[in-house]
Amino acid sequence: MQVLSSPKTLKKLVALLRKKNKSIGFVPTMGSLHEGHLTLAKKSIQENNFTIASIFVNPLQFGPREDFKRYPRHLIRDKKLLREAGVDALFLPDADEFYPKDFQTTVSLSRLSQPLCGKSRPGHFSGVATVIMKLLNLTSPDRLYLGLKDYQQCRVVEQMVEDMGLSVLVCRVPIAREKDGLAMSSRNIYLSSQERAEAVILSRALSRARDFIRLGQRNVGFIKREILQTLRSASLARVDYAEIVNARTLESVVKLQKGDEVVVALAVYFSKTRLIDNLTMSVG
Amino acid sequence: MQVLSSPKTLKKLVALLRKKNKSIGFVPTMGSLHEGHLTLAKKSIQENNFTIASIFVNPLQFGPREDFKRYPRHLIRDKKLLREAGVDALFLPDADEFYPKDFQTTVSLSRLSQPLCGKSRPGHFSGVATVIMKLLNLTSPDRLYLGLKDYQQCRVVEQMVEDMGLSVLVCRVPIAREKDGLAMSSRNIYLSSQERAEAVILSRALSRARDFIRLGQRNVGFIKREILQTLRSASLARVDYAEIVNARTLESVVKLQKGDEVVVALAVYFSKTRLIDNLTMSVG
Repeated sequence: MQVLSSPKTLKKLVALLRKKNKSIGFVPTMGSLHEGHLTLAKKSIQENNFTIASIFVNPLQFGPREDFKRYPRHLIRDKKLLREAGVDALFLPDADEFYPKDFQTTVSLSRLSQPLCGKSRPGHFSGVATVIMKLLNLTSPDRLYLGLKDYQQCRVVEQMVEDMGLSVLVCRVPIAREKDGLAMSSRNIYLSSQERAEAVILSRALSRARDFIRLGQRNVGFIKREILQTLRSASLARVDYAEIVNARTLESVVKLQKGDEVVVALAVYFSKTRLIDNLTMSVG
Repeated sequence: MQVLSSPKTLKKLVALLRKKNKSIGFVPTMGSLHEGHLTLAKKSIQENNFTIASIFVNPLQFGPREDFKRYPRHLIRDKKLLREAGVDALFLPDADEFYPKDFQTTVSLSRLSQPLCGKSRPGHFSGVATVIMKLLNLTSPDRLYLGLKDYQQCRVVEQMVEDMGLSVLVCRVPIAREKDGLAMSSRNIYLSSQERAEAVILSRALSRARDFIRLGQRNVGFIKREILQTLRSASLARVDYAEIVNARTLESVVKLQKGDEVVVALAVYFSKTRLIDNLTMSVG
């Protein structure tokens, strides 16, 4: 596995691959890899001639009071995992080279970045859109792999790709879960053992919502109340949001209708640790 | 000359050209072509295997009180001119297809879009950056040709290309001028005959500034006063700004120093018509 830190070297590699007509898959990450990331990498390896992963804790997508500094970093282990998974190249940019002093361009999305995580994390999705746009320009991949745990991020990137006429195909990869159902996240290591035990409540609440919808419940207010009640059964959980939204626009849905594609999306704090989880489904 | 209106068809053409290893030059315009635009096109034709021009009066870069609706449109003549110049393909997007209903992505630059025209035209450079980014994604050119009359636009686009890791080479093309020195502009046709006669004052004021600097004047305040005095000699002229700025950052310069790269930049109204002109120079 080649490790590259300079955007220029990366572009040279990509130009060479393009010349040889190799298809490129790209897996952007912030490191501290877990099984979810490796699933993205493996899918890319299956579907492309060449897979580039990146590890970059992107300062732009963290708010001033968020966990940029303490975000877990495990570079040596991450490299080993990516190499073993069969990733061909790892892009490991230096923040000062990636965002030089006179860097001043922002990519933002007006509507998709407002609700859900956008409410509690203002500026977050501009940071995401900006870094992904730049990474896509540097890697010019055929396919981009994103995990569905960050559903709103998927939608923001998909919409940006569509709006801006980018050629990449965005591939959504299902959420990887621990045995008890907790969605895998690099932030799970922040949890105390009691918090870790209680964190399963997110996936439980989602399953409960799914069951209600499958059984014909169409009243969103009712389902949300049930979700909140489930979440509150965990003594350490503090709900940031529990919403049912249109899967494309992320706008609130009031009454479910046959054929609706919706997302049930949750964000829950345990102490300072903010966990998210979601479930996409078609209303039958 | 192929005429394409759909982004999809354009991308297919570009993919084919890329496969054949053809270099692509791109000349974005808002139509109502004059000699300045044709110089861009000719330069692109010389330097690339294939030249794509676009004509698109981009609504995003016009303010609510600006001349979007009355902006001159001369499509039949424009097509003829581009064909005769030897342009290979013309992209003529439909606004509703280029910016569909759910379009919501904006590219903006924080510092370069603030001064000069950014002051009197808030949002203008976001509109420019957004449309150029999309057009670059659709045409993926080796070289992009921009006229230096819109100096700030050149800098915004150059910085965006640098910031976002785009591969295109931005080629600046000198200002084309009428015989009396007036910078060519699609907006010149708005001028009454008296205004047209007086409009030469912009290039005169720039020449005067250049002469002062060449003769060793280093006091920017003094030079600006001389420029303003010159401009005010035209009875119908109403000055929007007259500035001397750093050629890269567009920040105000107070005292000229040897080796400085500066731009003398003007915007002047004649009735509702806003004319701009500029002069780049190295301080000797």
